[in-house]
Amino acid sequence: MFPLPVIVVNFKSYREASGERGLELARIAQEVSEESGVTIAVAPQMVDLALVVREVKIPVFAQHIDTVKTGSYTGSTTLNAVKEAGAVGSLLNHAEKRIKASEIDEIITEMNREEMVSILCTNNYAVSKALSLLSPTFIAIEPPELIGGDVSVTTAKPEIITRVVKSVEKLAPEVGVLTGAGVKTSKDVRRALELGCDGVLLASGVVKSDNPRKTLEDLASGVD
Amino acid sequence: MFPLPVIVVNFKSYREASGERGLELARIAQEVSEESGVTIAVAPQMVDLALVVREVKIPVFAQHIDTVKTGSYTGSTTLNAVKEAGAVGSLLNHAEKRIKASEIDEIITEMNREEMVSILCTNNYAVSKALSLLSPTFIAIEPPELIGGDVSVTTAKPEIITRVVKSVEKLAPEVGVLTGAGVKTSKDVRRALELGCDGVLLASGVVKSDNPRKTLEDLASGVD
Amino acid sequence: MFPLPVIVVNFKSYREASGERGLELARIAQEVSEESGVTIAVAPQMVDLALVVREVKIPVFAQHIDTVKTGSYTGSTTLNAVKEAGAVGSLLNHAEKRIKASEIDEIITEMNREEMVSILCTNNYAVSKALSLLSPTFIAIEPPELIGGDVSVTTAKPEIITRVVKSVEKLAPEVGVLTGAGVKTSKDVRRALELGCDGVLLASGVVKSDNPRKTLEDLASGVD
Amino acid sequence: MFPLPVIVVNFKSYREASGERGLELARIAQEVSEESGVTIAVAPQMVDLALVVREVKIPVFAQHIDTVKTGSYTGSTTLNAVKEAGAVGSLLNHAEKRIKASEIDEIITEMNREEMVSILCTNNYAVSKALSLLSPTFIAIEPPELIGGDVSVTTAKPEIITRVVKSVEKLAPEVGVLTGAGVKTSKDVRRALELGCDGVLLASGVVKSDNPRKTLEDLASGVD
Repeated sequence: MFPLPVIVVNFKSYREASGERGLELARIAQEVSEESGVTIAVAPQMVDLALVVREVKIPVFAQHIDTVKTGSYTGSTTLNAVKEAGAVGSLLNHAEKRIKASEIDEIITEMNREEMVSILCTNNYAVSKALSLLSPTFIAIEPPELIGGDVSVTTAKPEIITRVVKSVEKLAPEVGVLTGAGVKTSKDVRRALELGCDGVLLASGVVKSDNPRKTLEDLASGVD
Repeated sequence: MFPLPVIVVNFKSYREASGERGLELARIAQEVSEESGVTIAVAPQMVDLALVVREVKIPVFAQHIDTVKTGSYTGSTTLNAVKEAGAVGSLLNHAEKRIKASEIDEIITEMNREEMVSILCTNNYAVSKALSLLSPTFIAIEPPELIGGDVSVTTAKPEIITRVVKSVEKLAPEVGVLTGAGVKTSKDVRRALELGCDGVLLASGVVKSDNPRKTLEDLASGVD
Repeated sequence: MFPLPVIVVNFKSYREASGERGLELARIAQEVSEESGVTIAVAPQMVDLALVVREVKIPVFAQHIDTVKTGSYTGSTTLNAVKEAGAVGSLLNHAEKRIKASEIDEIITEMNREEMVSILCTNNYAVSKALSLLSPTFIAIEPPELIGGDVSVTTAKPEIITRVVKSVEKLAPEVGVLTGAGVKTSKDVRRALELGCDGVLLASGVVKSDNPRKTLEDLASGVD
Repeated sequence: MFPLPVIVVNFKSYREASGERGLELARIAQEVSEESGVTIAVAPQMVDLALVVREVKIPVFAQHIDTVKTGSYTGSTTLNAVKEAGAVGSLLNHAEKRIKASEIDEIITEMNREEMVSILCTNNYAVSKALSLLSPTFIAIEPPELIGGDVSVTTAKPEIITRVVKSVEKLAPEVGVLTGAGVKTSKDVRRALELGCDGVLLASGVVKSDNPRKTLEDLASGVD
């Protein structure tokens, strides 16, 4: 796997990160990663996935996987398609794309078999603790009420991060922990790492920034 | 728009049409189209969309659009992303990805505004007639019980095609009609055109063929 | 069927219309109906359906039907269960419970076979026109942006009602038309009937009223 | 809560257990419970819930809860509606009605606050272990491939039950364990209890029995 800590940039369905602009943002992420030596990964829009993989060398994630089955599933995104597109793994169960508990288990089991990296998003302490037992590569704890907001989870709810880190360490020590929601600055990144996280997951902070390169440089500088 | 009639090949989530094999199938479709002079379009797997658009010049369709809204929609495929990926349009409401009636209206309205080509799949006469009033570019009538089977809809249920063609002609004459389900040979294509269709929509007949090029050449020869 | 015009009261999932309070509201609706001679129907909360049917003689509707299939479908509401519970029919495709176009067709076809009354909710002119071809008993046109609001659709958008009434009269004359959204007073009911509707569909105007009986009496007085 | 062990009969959407026949089956369950002294609970069809609660004194469960929110949710079943209908609790996440992990957490949290009994269905060892941390009243482990079949889970996969019982005892000792899938006879019940379960969850074994009373009597005799 890629070296930790990691900064994962989720492009969501933002207009600012689709098509050519999405490609450009992925290239900027790569440049900042190379210059700073900090791992930066991107999760581009679903239809751009295979193209972005071809254009950059940093780790590329899908934003979601619909099913592990291949075949007559028009309009679905399969684990196989994500893998063949060259993605290193996928976000799963994002606040904007929650999936069923039994599907999370099925997809993670298959991703682990395929040695793919799963970033399983969770909304609170209880769910993080429970789902860590399903053996994702990472739990990404993101309190939904802070997503897209101006205050970082690391400032607003540091205790939830601490509790998740401790609980995962105890119950599922092989699982990493990321955090997100409101993350925007080097200070937020530094604080997340101090609290025991392996990295951050963010979106609007970079995608909607007036100067994504500068924002990424600042974020990367939060890693010593 | 592209010249009619059209042969649309849906890659679904078939393993045989993902990643490199999907790209290769798109290239074969382009070659057969150039040699035969018949329009052949492809609907590759969602994560391959932008890449396939870059690699071929034939019309490329998305298999599905989730929403017309851009923004905080992780894991969704927006109309904007499909358009910026360079697709000419999208399949909608496929038997394996049915959508809500009000969403069909919303997506088609926006696709028409963006001059994108919509292929709206339907399952029977009543639904085809009703949804033709929502002004898609094409209605693609596919009786679900024949999809993926060995008997072509043109042989098993020619009367449903005739009824849809007549009804659309009367109620929404600007809407084209495609048909699919069990379509595999030049004879099926010829029959579809004789029944008044503007083309065919098929998947397994090509994707799971031992020799997709030969199958596509045969299908194209059904157009005089 | 019941005499027209009809006032249909949707209890939604309002706390004010669940359990004992739901039963009481159904009884009030019955009393006002008997006193005024105007048909008033109720759509109680799903889990109260069979009980409400036993307690009142006015027409009782389900709020939704999941599927026409019976069998191994834990947690689903089948058409058969709704019928055996004694409901006269069901709302379908409400703005808060949109369903797929092909399911609308399947459920209405079966409801017509079973002589059940279907009230098919729609959001705009194009969808109303299209779905009227699927032969529901009623189209209930409700612009979503006015639902639950203070201005009646009959005041804010009378032209949409007129267009739907005319279009349904022409394309599917056996289909009735209801309207709703913001309907609260006798004036709104009178205006709906003047515009050619067969009745109104409303929820908060009655359920959240300080005095549901008085509100229902006022609404009923809008029918001459 | 009711005395353990418990036999829970899920009526699903079976035609044999809807309307009058559903009521009759609930009454039979009550009679067998009274005669045998064994707790028997029923989960009738959703639209019959409030009526069945009025007609019998045994514990009655909903088959599913859509949301904990009340208000403008036409066609949804709220926790509040289930509670006001008089149900003792609800099945959750049945194989035929899986729900999202974050919703499971939200609904169970609210059910615990309301002192309602939650029976959380799970499909395998890993999911049972993980979701037991969300503090349902019971985990009901049901391997999906055995549901509705002829071989009881207690015979086909006793080891999965043992593993779940042990794991829950260790991680969440306040959570009970039920099992189901293929359960039909007193022998199956006896075996489930020997393996450490607090009861069984079954459906077709009773509902589709030629003689539900006799089947229930036999099942109850499996409890010493």
